Amino acid sequence: MAIIIKKFGGTSVGSIERIRSIAQKISKEYQSGDQIVIVVSAMAKTTDELFSLAFQISDHPSRRELDMLLTAGERITMSLLSLALQEKGFASISFTGSQSGIITDSKHGNARIMKINAFRILEELEKGKIVIVAGFQGVSTEKEITTLGRGGSDTSAVALASYLSADLCEIYTDVDGVFTADPRIVQHPKAMPEIDYPQMLALAYNGSKVLHPRAVEFACIYDVPLVIRSSFSDKPGTTLKKLLDKEKNMEDRKITAIAHKERLICYTLDKSDAGLFREFGFEIFKYRIKDALVSIFFEEKYESEIRYFLQQHNYTVRERKDAVGFVILVGIGINLDLSFLAKTIELTEKYHPLEISHSERTIEILLGSDAVVACVQDLHQEFVESNSKNLGV
Amino acid sequence: MAIIIKKFGGTSVGSIERIRSIAQKISKEYQSGDQIVIVVSAMAKTTDELFSLAFQISDHPSRRELDMLLTAGERITMSLLSLALQEKGFASISFTGSQSGIITDSKHGNARIMKINAFRILEELEKGKIVIVAGFQGVSTEKEITTLGRGGSDTSAVALASYLSADLCEIYTDVDGVFTADPRIVQHPKAMPEIDYPQMLALAYNGSKVLHPRAVEFACIYDVPLVIRSSFSDKPGTTLKKLLDKEKNMEDRKITAIAHKERLICYTLDKSDAGLFREFGFEIFKYRIKDALVSIFFEEKYESEIRYFLQQHNYTVRERKDAVGFVILVGIGINLDLSFLAKTIELTEKYHPLEISHSERTIEILLGSDAVVACVQDLHQEFVESNSKNLGV
Repeated sequence: MAIIIKKFGGTSVGSIERIRSIAQKISKEYQSGDQIVIVVSAMAKTTDELFSLAFQISDHPSRRELDMLLTAGERITMSLLSLALQEKGFASISFTGSQSGIITDSKHGNARIMKINAFRILEELEKGKIVIVAGFQGVSTEKEITTLGRGGSDTSAVALASYLSADLCEIYTDVDGVFTADPRIVQHPKAMPEIDYPQMLALAYNGSKVLHPRAVEFACIYDVPLVIRSSFSDKPGTTLKKLLDKEKNMEDRKITAIAHKERLICYTLDKSDAGLFREFGFEIFKYRIKDALVSIFFEEKYESEIRYFLQQHNYTVRERKDAVGFVILVGIGINLDLSFLAKTIELTEKYHPLEISHSERTIEILLGSDAVVACVQDLHQEFVESNSKNLGV
Repeated sequence: MAIIIKKFGGTSVGSIERIRSIAQKISKEYQSGDQIVIVVSAMAKTTDELFSLAFQISDHPSRRELDMLLTAGERITMSLLSLALQEKGFASISFTGSQSGIITDSKHGNARIMKINAFRILEELEKGKIVIVAGFQGVSTEKEITTLGRGGSDTSAVALASYLSADLCEIYTDVDGVFTADPRIVQHPKAMPEIDYPQMLALAYNGSKVLHPRAVEFACIYDVPLVIRSSFSDKPGTTLKKLLDKEKNMEDRKITAIAHKERLICYTLDKSDAGLFREFGFEIFKYRIKDALVSIFFEEKYESEIRYFLQQHNYTVRERKDAVGFVILVGIGINLDLSFLAKTIELTEKYHPLEISHSERTIEILLGSDAVVACVQDLHQEFVESNSKNLGV
């Protein structure tokens, strides 16, 4: 009998109708004999609404009370889904993060999982029940309720899958898997049937929204059998870490996918101020240090938070640039020779890139935000669609 | 019955005595019932000597004839090792790359493996023979003898392991595995019992000499069970892609190892000249493009080759910098918050880093070559030896 974890995000549980349709989906699978654990997020917009309520009361609400408030979001979803299953005649039980034994450190708002002690889940699975777990939340060793911060629900699911040695961990989302580029901007995107962990890490860290890098790191380290698929279709999705086809050109070097990030803001600070990063709980997309200056690139939506933090600590922003973006090519062996770089330089010339750099599995282009979409489209067509494999020296 | 691939590099087969001692080692394992394929490099210095002979005849020998010459190196080793085994009473047989069915493209001197068709190896294993294969070489579809270029012998071994679905692929070298930093420069280096593929890729691409990035890419894609160990000791070595200990702090973020590169040269070229990279068959350590300039960082030893190539193609080097180096921190989740960066900035301040940048699993410091060793020592002590885990926000 297989143990299967299914994680549903905010959009997938966004209405009573959708919760019912998930219950329908699950009931089919349960009848085939699997043990099922479902991890849920808060219903779409719920977290934002709760945040907004708190900020109507206080400009700077304490993180502990925010955690008490926000964790209500997943509790609503988990109990509604459990009710929907019971309504269909299934035995189900919902658990909070704490009841599920997700033990975290005590950093409110951005806690990290330290260990899992999910004996209650195991007991209920043994009794034949479908278990529903509130994602994104845990409990500290001081018995305080914590939230896991960004990527939290995915991380809850992957952590439980690891603890339970699950046969499969399915992350349900609103797209058909991991795409070769953002389907909203390229003409012929493809959902990849499989991708290896180093490439998935590169995509996740470089702007692909389908899975948070934190959850990918976790899945990679603990070798969790992960599938990313849509809750709105029956398509098979993308499997992480399946073997590639050995019949193909074995040492093929190729660009397999393109990530991007638009509308970034870049703050430049004095390097002597870098001590502030010790306390800096914000998500930064990239950083660069040259001589005595530190540049950090982050999303527009974090600017007011970051500005407030810097003011509180009396740090000065030396320069502010907005409307920059990144296009990141991800592939296998693409920096083992420079012909991919030559082609990249040629193709991006008209977008006036500011910088091009690279890592093991990436070529990264910094450019104006306005040029990002067209640049992704061009590169996707040249590198991915026409599958120009034989660029190599 | 397990199939085991064992690859021995130039130092491990560097003398008749060492070849005999490998034969001794192998004969023990063979008696335990495993099927064994041995991949060998040329004896240490042989390749250099053959090169030097060729250059006494011609300043620019043709790559095809060089391949015909160089492939003699591994043939000498493979037949000597086979003789040593037969002398001990074992049935063994040696094969060239071509006889082993290693099919490559036709790029002399830097060929890539396209597929493996190793039916002769399988036949001989079935007969109970120990099979010895010449690494680093293959045959093109036009039946020309090719060499695989840098990292070639490791790649031969990994490719054969993949084709044969080997239970284990052991890369024997002159060190006890993958270390937390270069044991020649830090005081308390540790051979890591295990490391995951994304980190091994980061180390290999960033100057760790123990395994070529090309072989790591191959092993990663085809999920080859790889162990790196010493041919001069019985230590267990480093296993790639074992699960980490789930009992530990699960979402731990930490720096696990440090790679470095000294004595690099940096050429700056006009970006408009970047088309030359299409033909550029040299190994480049890093590149950076900013505005209209391309900087490439490479090892001193390649300078005369590269200079010759650029002259031949009428390209101009705008600027030459020497004596630069990199120190690269490799870890898990180290760019999910900026406290690792803050600590890195503080610790490296006295080495006057020119730039600091990052990728998914790395923090990369560009600095003067003279400062590299002391910087690695400092960072190893702070991040690895004292295992300061709790830097995280």
